[in-house]
Amino acid sequence: MLVVCCGVFGALAALRADDGYRLWLRYDRITDEAARSAIAPHVQAIRFATPQAEDSATLAAARQELATGLHGLLGVVPRFQSVAATPGADLGDEGFQLQRDGGTIVISARRDIGILYGAFDLLRRIQTRQPLAALNVTSVPRIQRRLLNHWDNLNGTVARGYAGGSLWNWFTLPDHVDARITDYARACASVGINGAVLTNVNANARFLTPQMLEKTAALAGVLRTYGMRVYLTARFSAPVEIGGLHTADPLDPEVRMWWAHKADEIYGYIPDFGGFLVKANSEGQPGPQDYQRSHADGANMMADALAPHGGIVMWRAFVYSHEAPDDRAKQGHQEFAPLDGKFLPNVVVQVKNGPIDFMPREPVHPLFGAMPKTPLALELQISQEYLGCSTQLAFLAPLFEEVLDTDTHANGIGTTVGRIIDGSADGHSLSVIAGVANTGNDRNWTGHPLAQSNWYAFGRLAWDHTLASSTIADEWTRQTFGNDTRVVQPLTRMLMESRETVVNYSMPLGLHHIMAEGHHYGPGPWVADLPRADWTSVYYHRATGQGIGFDRTATGSNALGLHAPDFVKRYADPATCPEEFLLWFHHLPWDHTMRSGRTLWDEIALHYQKGVESVRSWQTTWAGLQGAIDPQLHAHVSALLRIQEQEARRWRDACLLYFQTFAKRPLPAGVEPPERDLDYHKNYQPAYVPGRDGA
Amino acid sequence: MLVVCCGVFGALAALRADDGYRLWLRYDRITDEAARSAIAPHVQAIRFATPQAEDSATLAAARQELATGLHGLLGVVPRFQSVAATPGADLGDEGFQLQRDGGTIVISARRDIGILYGAFDLLRRIQTRQPLAALNVTSVPRIQRRLLNHWDNLNGTVARGYAGGSLWNWFTLPDHVDARITDYARACASVGINGAVLTNVNANARFLTPQMLEKTAALAGVLRTYGMRVYLTARFSAPVEIGGLHTADPLDPEVRMWWAHKADEIYGYIPDFGGFLVKANSEGQPGPQDYQRSHADGANMMADALAPHGGIVMWRAFVYSHEAPDDRAKQGHQEFAPLDGKFLPNVVVQVKNGPIDFMPREPVHPLFGAMPKTPLALELQISQEYLGCSTQLAFLAPLFEEVLDTDTHANGIGTTVGRIIDGSADGHSLSVIAGVANTGNDRNWTGHPLAQSNWYAFGRLAWDHTLASSTIADEWTRQTFGNDTRVVQPLTRMLMESRETVVNYSMPLGLHHIMAEGHHYGPGPWVADLPRADWTSVYYHRATGQGIGFDRTATGSNALGLHAPDFVKRYADPATCPEEFLLWFHHLPWDHTMRSGRTLWDEIALHYQKGVESVRSWQTTWAGLQGAIDPQLHAHVSALLRIQEQEARRWRDACLLYFQTFAKRPLPAGVEPPERDLDYHKNYQPAYVPGRDGA
Repeated sequence: MLVVCCGVFGALAALRADDGYRLWLRYDRITDEAARSAIAPHVQAIRFATPQAEDSATLAAARQELATGLHGLLGVVPRFQSVAATPGADLGDEGFQLQRDGGTIVISARRDIGILYGAFDLLRRIQTRQPLAALNVTSVPRIQRRLLNHWDNLNGTVARGYAGGSLWNWFTLPDHVDARITDYARACASVGINGAVLTNVNANARFLTPQMLEKTAALAGVLRTYGMRVYLTARFSAPVEIGGLHTADPLDPEVRMWWAHKADEIYGYIPDFGGFLVKANSEGQPGPQDYQRSHADGANMMADALAPHGGIVMWRAFVYSHEAPDDRAKQGHQEFAPLDGKFLPNVVVQVKNGPIDFMPREPVHPLFGAMPKTPLALELQISQEYLGCSTQLAFLAPLFEEVLDTDTHANGIGTTVGRIIDGSADGHSLSVIAGVANTGNDRNWTGHPLAQSNWYAFGRLAWDHTLASSTIADEWTRQTFGNDTRVVQPLTRMLMESRETVVNYSMPLGLHHIMAEGHHYGPGPWVADLPRADWTSVYYHRATGQGIGFDRTATGSNALGLHAPDFVKRYADPATCPEEFLLWFHHLPWDHTMRSGRTLWDEIALHYQKGVESVRSWQTTWAGLQGAIDPQLHAHVSALLRIQEQEARRWRDACLLYFQTFAKRPLPAGVEPPERDLDYHKNYQPAYVPGRDGA
Repeated sequence: MLVVCCGVFGALAALRADDGYRLWLRYDRITDEAARSAIAPHVQAIRFATPQAEDSATLAAARQELATGLHGLLGVVPRFQSVAATPGADLGDEGFQLQRDGGTIVISARRDIGILYGAFDLLRRIQTRQPLAALNVTSVPRIQRRLLNHWDNLNGTVARGYAGGSLWNWFTLPDHVDARITDYARACASVGINGAVLTNVNANARFLTPQMLEKTAALAGVLRTYGMRVYLTARFSAPVEIGGLHTADPLDPEVRMWWAHKADEIYGYIPDFGGFLVKANSEGQPGPQDYQRSHADGANMMADALAPHGGIVMWRAFVYSHEAPDDRAKQGHQEFAPLDGKFLPNVVVQVKNGPIDFMPREPVHPLFGAMPKTPLALELQISQEYLGCSTQLAFLAPLFEEVLDTDTHANGIGTTVGRIIDGSADGHSLSVIAGVANTGNDRNWTGHPLAQSNWYAFGRLAWDHTLASSTIADEWTRQTFGNDTRVVQPLTRMLMESRETVVNYSMPLGLHHIMAEGHHYGPGPWVADLPRADWTSVYYHRATGQGIGFDRTATGSNALGLHAPDFVKRYADPATCPEEFLLWFHHLPWDHTMRSGRTLWDEIALHYQKGVESVRSWQTTWAGLQGAIDPQLHAHVSALLRIQEQEARRWRDACLLYFQTFAKRPLPAGVEPPERDLDYHKNYQPAYVPGRDGA
C-alpha cells in the first residue's frame, strides 16, 4: 500500500485574491511603522469648517470615508468636529482648504461637497506618504463640469466599452440600486468628477419616458451624495418617437413646447438634473438639419427648455457630412465655426480632442480657438477604442496632457486648449470637460487592471489641467500598489511609456485611421473601396510609390489653414513640424530625411520595431514584480501583456509589409523580419471584438 | 462658533459587505463552539483512497478545497494522505465513499473526480452540521451527464439571462482565463455538475472556427480539473457558413466529411470534448428538413462524426411546425415519436420538461415514455424566463421534483420521468440531464441572491433525482446563511412556497402562456392577432362567455391522448384530473364546481389573490430577518420582494380584469379590488426586460 503524505496544502491564511474592485481607494494598513507614526499624530481629529451648519448626507459620506480610511491606513479612530465657519479664501462651490491645527486636520469649504473633496485629498496624501506636518493646501477646480460620458445602452451593452456591460441596472431600478453605484460615485468623487451622462450618444428616446426617468432618479439619488449630477443624451427625434408629434423641427412651437414640458417633467423627478448631451446629424442620428435648421437652432431649442431649471446643453461637434468630398478633418470646423455667437448662454459645443476620431495621436481640433464666443467642452476618450480595447496598456494622461497643453495661438502665445476649456482664455463662466468612460461591470471596473489609471487620470486633469502626467502616474501607482519604490518606479515607467508605445506600433509619425474594417482593434492599412472614402485607410495614409502622408497644408486640403497663423507657420514646414505629426500634415517621399538623419521609410520601420520592443521590456519588468503584486492581478496583467506583444507584432508586420509594397525598400537593420506574409494579415480577422453599438 | 462633535462614525471594523460571490461555498468559522468541537476531532486527517496512484490537478483541487474549508469552518489544518486502493463498492467513474477511521476521514473513489465530489460532500455535511461520528456514505450519480446549458452569445449577451452578461470572456481568451472560471467550476463540481454547453442553442457557426476552438480549449483546461467537460452548440448550416460548401444536406458526402474533419479538429484542441447540442428546424434555425431529411438524418450525421472520439449529440425536440394548425403541445411528439429507434447510440433526444415552453407549471412532455428505444435527456430551465426573470423569488426544486417524480405509466406504474432519464426504465446506458443556466457575470452570479438555490438544486437533483426538494432547500439555506434555526426555518418556508406562489399569481389551475407580447415577464392574457395563433395568449386560455381552458382531451385536440393510457385515464376526467392541471386539459364553465365547493371563477380569483398574499407574507418574514442577514444582501432581497409584490398584483389585476370581461361575475370576497382598469394594464409596457436573443 503506497502512502503519500502530502502535508499541509498551500498558504491557508492567504489573503483573498485582489480582484481590483477597490480601485485606488485602498486603505490597507501602512506596514512601514515609521511612516505610520509620522502621520498618525496629525490626524487624531478632523474638523469640518463650512458655513453650512446642518449635517448632510455628503458630510456623513466624508466622515465615513475618513473613518474607514484613517482606521484602515493608520489604525486611527479620528474624532470629528463640525464648525460653522466661512473659509478665508475664495473656494467657489467645490474648492477646499486643508490645514493642520495641532493633532487636528481642518477641512474648510463653502459647501459640503468641498469637504468631501478635501477628505479624499487628505486620504490621497496619506496613501502616497506626503508629509502632513506643514499641511496648507488650497484647491479649487479649474473646470466647472467634469463629466464622464457613458455610452451605455438600455439593453445593458456599452458602445466602445471593453469592461463588460453597463453599470446601470435598468431592469430592477428604481426599487433596487446596486451597492456598486455607491462605490462608483466614491471613485468619481475621489478625483473630483461631478457628473455623468448615463446614456449612449447614439440615443434612445425611451430614456426620456416617465418609467425611465423614475429609474434615473433613483440613480441620481445615490450619486447626489457624492456631488455628482446626472445628465442624459437627448434623441433629437424624441418628440416624434415618444411624443406623438409629426415633426421634431426645432422651430415648430409644438416641438418647443414638448421639450419645455419634458424638461419640467425631468426636473420633477431629478431637481438637480444636469442637462442634455446631443449627437445630432452625425452618423445617422436625427437632428435639426433634417428640417433645414442649423445646429444652433437645435441646441437653442433644448437650451430654452432647460434654462428655467438651470440645465445645460452639450451639443457635439463630431459631425462629418455625408456629401462633402472635402477632408473629413475640416468638416467639424466648417459646420460649427460659422455658428460662433449664435448659441444661447447655456449651450456648450463639445469637441473631440482631434478632428478625426480619438486616434492614438491627433493634432488638436481646429475648433479650439475658432469659436471664442462659445464655451467649448473638450471630449476625451478614456475608453481605448483605438488603443487596444482594454487588452493593451495605454496610460492616457500623457495624451490628455498633450492636448490640454497644446498652444492654439488663438489669442496669441499661451492660448492652450486647457485655457480655452476652462473659460479663462475667452472669459466664459460655463466650462465643461468630458471623458468617454472606460468603466463596465467587470469586477475590476475597467477590464485591463491598469486601465483604472485612465479613469483616475481623467478626473485629476479635469480638476486641474496643469497637473503633470508623471505626477498622476506616481500618485495612482502608490495608491493602488503601495509605496515600495521597487514597484512604483518600474510601474510608473511602464505607464509613462505606454501611450507612445501604442502610437509607435500602430500609427507612428502622424499616421492615423488605418485600422481593419469592422472594428477598431487591429491593423488594416489596405482597407479601401468602402461606401465612403473617409471610412477607408488609404484615404488617410495616401501611400504611393513616391511617398506617404496626407498633405493638409495649403498645397493639399489645407485643413491646417483652419488653425491660427502662428500654429500654421510651425506645422506647415516639414522642417519645423513636430515629427509626431509629420504624416498627418504632409505627404513626403520615402527618402525624406528625418531629424535623425534616417530616411522616412527607415524611421517608420524603426518606430514600429521600437513599439514591439517596449512591450517586451514591460513583460520583463512585470515578470520582475512577481511576488510584490497580488498573484491573481499579476497573472491577469501578464496575460494581457502577452496579448499586447502579439498585437504589436501584428500591427508592425501588417503595416510594414503593406507599406513596403509602395516603398519597395528593405527593412532597416534592427527591424525583425515578418513571420507571415501580407496575405495572411489581410485575411486575418479577430474572432470577436466587443463594444460595437449593438453589443 | 457652533461646534458639533459627531463622535466615532459607524462600526469601523465591520466586515466587508457580503456580495454573494461565494455562493454556498462559505467556510466562515463555525461560531457554535460545541458544534465545532464535536466535528473537529474527526477531520484531523483526510485520506484519499483511489487506485489512481499519481497525484493529479483534480486531487490537488480536492486538497485545496478541504484545506480551505476545514481551516475556515473549524480552524483545523488537516493532514493529507493518499493510498492506492480499489474501493470495496461499485462506485462507477464518479461515485465516492466517505468513512471514518479514528480521526481520519477516508474518501474512496475509483477516479480522482470521485475524490473531489467526496470532498465537497464532506464539507457540505460540516456546513450543515451533520454528525460525522458514524459516517458511512456511498454516493453514486444516477445520471451520467449532468449539464448546464448556457445560452450565451459570442457578443457577451445571454439569451433569457437575467444576471448580467456571459461568464466567458471570449475577447481575451485564450491568453487570459478569468479567475472566476475556477470558481464557476468549483460551484458546479460541489453539486456534481460535470459539463457545460457553453453556447446559445440559437447557434453561431463561428464558435466552430479554429480561433474560437483555441479559446474554448483554454476554458476546457480549467473546467477539466473540476470534472467538467465542455460541449458546444452546432449550427446545422456551419458547413455552408464557415466551410465554404454549397449545402448542409446531412446525406451529402462532402457535408459528412466536413463534420468528420471538424470533429477531428475539435478533439485536437479539446481531447475530452463532450459533444454537440443542436436546435434544428425550430424557430428559424436551419436543420435537416431544409433538405427534406429527418431529424434522425441530421443527428446521425453529427453522431457519426463524433463517435470515433466518444462524443455525443444532444438533439433538441423543441420544435413546432410553422404550418401545422394542430395543438402546439402535440408537435414535438408528432415529429419525434415516429423516429424512435432511428437514432445512433450516441444520440440523445433532449426534451423540455413540458410540451409548451418552461411555463411555471406544465404537465410532463408526452415524449417521456413514447421513445423507449432512444435515450431521452430532460431539459429543465434554471433561468426564470417565465417566472419573473430573476427579480422574483421562485425556488425551482419543487418544479424539478414534480417533473422527475411524475409517473408516465409508460412501462406500467413507476415509470417516472426520473427513471426514463436515468436510463433505468428502458435499459439505456447513456443518460443526460440539462438545466438552462441562470448564471451571468453579476457579482452574485444569479441576479436574485436567492436564485443561487436554483443552480444548487439543479445540480443536486441531477446527481440524485430522488432527493426531496425540502431537503435541498434546507441544505442550501444552511450552507448559505448558516444554521441558526431562526433564519433556516422561515427562509426554507419561503423557498418551498415560492414556485407555487408564482403559479398562483400568474398562471394558476393549468393556465399557461398568457404573457405580454415582446417579453416573457408580465401578464398579457389579451394578446391576440399575431402572425401565428400559437404565439398568442387567447390560443392557450380560450376564455369565452361560457368558460375557460384548453380542451386537450379526446373531445378537443387530444394532446392528452399522446400519453400512456393510465395517465390519460386520470387526466381525462375533470373529476380526477389534478386541479393544478385542470385548465391545461379541460375547457370548463365558469361555474364548474371545484373540489373546494367554489365555482371555477371564484377559485381562479382566489388563487391570484393567494399569490399576492404569499409574497406579502414573505416581506414580513424577510423584514424579521434584518440583523440576522448581511445588510447589503438583506436590502437587495427586500427591494426584489417589493418588485415581486408589485408584479404579483399586476398579474392578478390584469388577468382577473380581463377574464372578468368573459366571466361577467363579481370578484369573490377576499380578493382585493383592482386599483386600475383593464386599459391601463393593456397599455402598460415595462421599460426594459433583459435577456432576449440580441441582448
